[in-house]
Amino acid sequence: MTFAALLTQEQVEKVHDASLEILEEVGLKVRFEPARELFKAHGCRVEEERVKFPRAVVEKYRRLVPSSFTFHARDPKFDKTIPQDSPVIVTASSAPDIIDPVTGRERRAESADIARIAHLINELPGYDIFSISTLAEDAPQDQFTVSRLYPSLKYCLKPLRVTTTNMKDTMSVMNMAYMVAGGEAAYKEHPFLTHHYCPIVSPLTMDHLSTENVMFFAQQGLPVYPTIVPNAGLTSPMSMAGTLAQGNAEFLAGLMLMQMTKEGTPTIYATLGTVADMRSGAYTSGAIECGMLHMAYAQMARFYNVPAGGYVGLTNSKVNDAQAGYETGMSGIAGLLGGMDMFNIGGLIDALKTFDFAKAVIDDEMALMMKRMKRGISFNEDDLAVNLIKEIGPGGSFITVKHTISRMKTEAVMTKMADRDARTIWEKKGALDIQSRAMNRVKEIMSKNTAPLIPPDVDAKIREAYPGLVEGMLEPIP
Amino acid sequence: MTFAALLTQEQVEKVHDASLEILEEVGLKVRFEPARELFKAHGCRVEEERVKFPRAVVEKYRRLVPSSFTFHARDPKFDKTIPQDSPVIVTASSAPDIIDPVTGRERRAESADIARIAHLINELPGYDIFSISTLAEDAPQDQFTVSRLYPSLKYCLKPLRVTTTNMKDTMSVMNMAYMVAGGEAAYKEHPFLTHHYCPIVSPLTMDHLSTENVMFFAQQGLPVYPTIVPNAGLTSPMSMAGTLAQGNAEFLAGLMLMQMTKEGTPTIYATLGTVADMRSGAYTSGAIECGMLHMAYAQMARFYNVPAGGYVGLTNSKVNDAQAGYETGMSGIAGLLGGMDMFNIGGLIDALKTFDFAKAVIDDEMALMMKRMKRGISFNEDDLAVNLIKEIGPGGSFITVKHTISRMKTEAVMTKMADRDARTIWEKKGALDIQSRAMNRVKEIMSKNTAPLIPPDVDAKIREAYPGLVEGMLEPIP
Repeated sequence: MTFAALLTQEQVEKVHDASLEILEEVGLKVRFEPARELFKAHGCRVEEERVKFPRAVVEKYRRLVPSSFTFHARDPKFDKTIPQDSPVIVTASSAPDIIDPVTGRERRAESADIARIAHLINELPGYDIFSISTLAEDAPQDQFTVSRLYPSLKYCLKPLRVTTTNMKDTMSVMNMAYMVAGGEAAYKEHPFLTHHYCPIVSPLTMDHLSTENVMFFAQQGLPVYPTIVPNAGLTSPMSMAGTLAQGNAEFLAGLMLMQMTKEGTPTIYATLGTVADMRSGAYTSGAIECGMLHMAYAQMARFYNVPAGGYVGLTNSKVNDAQAGYETGMSGIAGLLGGMDMFNIGGLIDALKTFDFAKAVIDDEMALMMKRMKRGISFNEDDLAVNLIKEIGPGGSFITVKHTISRMKTEAVMTKMADRDARTIWEKKGALDIQSRAMNRVKEIMSKNTAPLIPPDVDAKIREAYPGLVEGMLEPIP
Repeated sequence: MTFAALLTQEQVEKVHDASLEILEEVGLKVRFEPARELFKAHGCRVEEERVKFPRAVVEKYRRLVPSSFTFHARDPKFDKTIPQDSPVIVTASSAPDIIDPVTGRERRAESADIARIAHLINELPGYDIFSISTLAEDAPQDQFTVSRLYPSLKYCLKPLRVTTTNMKDTMSVMNMAYMVAGGEAAYKEHPFLTHHYCPIVSPLTMDHLSTENVMFFAQQGLPVYPTIVPNAGLTSPMSMAGTLAQGNAEFLAGLMLMQMTKEGTPTIYATLGTVADMRSGAYTSGAIECGMLHMAYAQMARFYNVPAGGYVGLTNSKVNDAQAGYETGMSGIAGLLGGMDMFNIGGLIDALKTFDFAKAVIDDEMALMMKRMKRGISFNEDDLAVNLIKEIGPGGSFITVKHTISRMKTEAVMTKMADRDARTIWEKKGALDIQSRAMNRVKEIMSKNTAPLIPPDVDAKIREAYPGLVEGMLEPIP
């Protein structure tokens, strides 16, 4: 596939140049002292909290970044490497709220919800990575993140993406991972958690805790990557070009942090760029401009030869209506055809605030469509079928030929959610919209293959090590 | 913008070669005798109804096709030329049914519906061309098409796309157009109807009446173009490559018909390719494979240097749900980034069978998003905003600067339908989904600027010339 490009090659280079100018002349405010020391030790100019990055330093370190990034899974058959396995589909994460699957009402999300979601994502074929979709309101004090991780480990074998708060929280998470893996060494052989942070607050500020975490994981040689989040009109210029320039400078700053910590640390050019709706200041994760920015950032990623990904196609809608469908679909395809490798796209509504089970199922079908498109058009002699066309001739039918029968399940996505019935049949089946059909599928999935994926003896040890830990048990949806 | 491409240049040439082989060795069954004579007179081999096209003949005539196509409007400010003005957004057309805007129930469409739809399309900024959306069940005998055209002329000044049945029907339509224009000569100076047919029935059969119409309009120098409609697994091979090869042969046959009728006749590489869902034989206009085929055909169109367009993103859903949104959105963006110029995309649900007012309004907003994407990223010094980024510095805000305020309404689409409110505000406003908001907008538009656009004296003459003609009056929606 040749990717669509919104920028010319000259414009890509102009963005790069503008970023170098910004990094050299403005630099970043860096709040975490060890990071400032790290930058200083590697040739940057440090004045109080401000760090300025000479061009030559940026040009040196940006060339050290590897061209691929691997998400490891507890079951290695689910390992995914980008760009090779792209598009890699990830749930969008950390929503505080959830649409209750029984009442249909919005409420705070809890750890029991995460058990259900983890199982759903484990079972849905379109998803490659489970980035823990919600927070857990019922988390005991000092168990903020393990309360999210534990139900995820219990019901999902796909790669997990997780974020943590402070280093204490991080160590608590890592200890649980080590226990599940059978020890620290075993875990490090196949680190099934990928850590994610937003260490850079736009404009141009490197935070304390997230920066510390990124440095820690890079040092340890464990998978971690940062996302940049400029919001045009609020935290970056109200112009896509300006938001590209600033965002790219922020990406390069994160890249340098990682490469200076440990050369050759893999990363992703990960983005959540938006253009604010200045009529209300709304965060427009569903807007087409969000899709456009992601296409352009993906082009910058190709310039640096690093995989591209991000939060794209995340609807502002509060319900699973046509807006939710087109916002996810339009920017999802824009990102795909623009060359993104990884998509934090599934399961959330209301601008990343709320998880919805039906949305996750619908997004799974969109994910399969995106993968079909990326697979492209097969083109051997048998595909071209000139002899078959000759044989059938004008006015003939292809319906019963072997060529058709042998290909009918592979040429097209065998959709499960899309309604393609005649209206009369659709009415006989209850005249359901896709939201209702998706909820039926959620209930069905929730009642199958529900055995916990942590062995009982390991589970017992975990529960002993974390007194008061949430149950994280999967319950079917009545 | 650099377009996304699913085919390599070598594959494009292979499709072209395969088409030449098909045209030369299989040819088409041509049912309309004057067309067979025309082909014979221009170097084709004719055996009974079969016409075979030597390579040299195809290569000669395919080079005569102009590189642009103009849709004229009654008000020339609405004229559109592709590819220059692309993306040009057209309603999808000729649905037999409609969702009644008052009862919400599906029923046969009538001429009064067309008056409302014509007015809606005239008022919605995303639409460029009104291809008459529905049939008219109440059409008097012998007024099959004028019953659709009359309400369209009465309420829409944008270019109209129309199809006709036999030549008697065609002449009836043309006479009405001449009367509105102030005579045949005046009409021909600015022919505000564009005629459309599907003269080729896949596989490889050229029909009688449509072929006659295409030849008539080409002869007259009036705007006309055909669409090819291969359906993989039923009327073409169950492979995208084979469907490309056969469809491309069919396109070239239509092209030759037009160029042999009159050299230099403009046309469009217009397509409605699908891959059948062989589980039920369903017509999958909403499937991602439909979007992929359109991208590939657009690539073929670039090879021939002719504008590309077609029926893309037409949902199979029966209602305006998330499926309707993502099916239109995903294939719409795929077509746009694949280089299509014209999109027959708006207003229909249920695989082109049913018009829905809310869908037309939602598609209008998607159209504006597609146009925004095509406009791309502006890239002058002021856009790049490096000085502004320096000035604001780390931790600053862009919210109140002049750069932001002067651009906030142009950088992003000022959406009208998308909900971007906080949940509490959305609930206060009635917790409406986009279907409900769109119907409110329909009702609002239906009550404004409702004066007929045919002057009373002309109208009187038309009604005299067409006894029993439908009223075609616009009624508000209660």
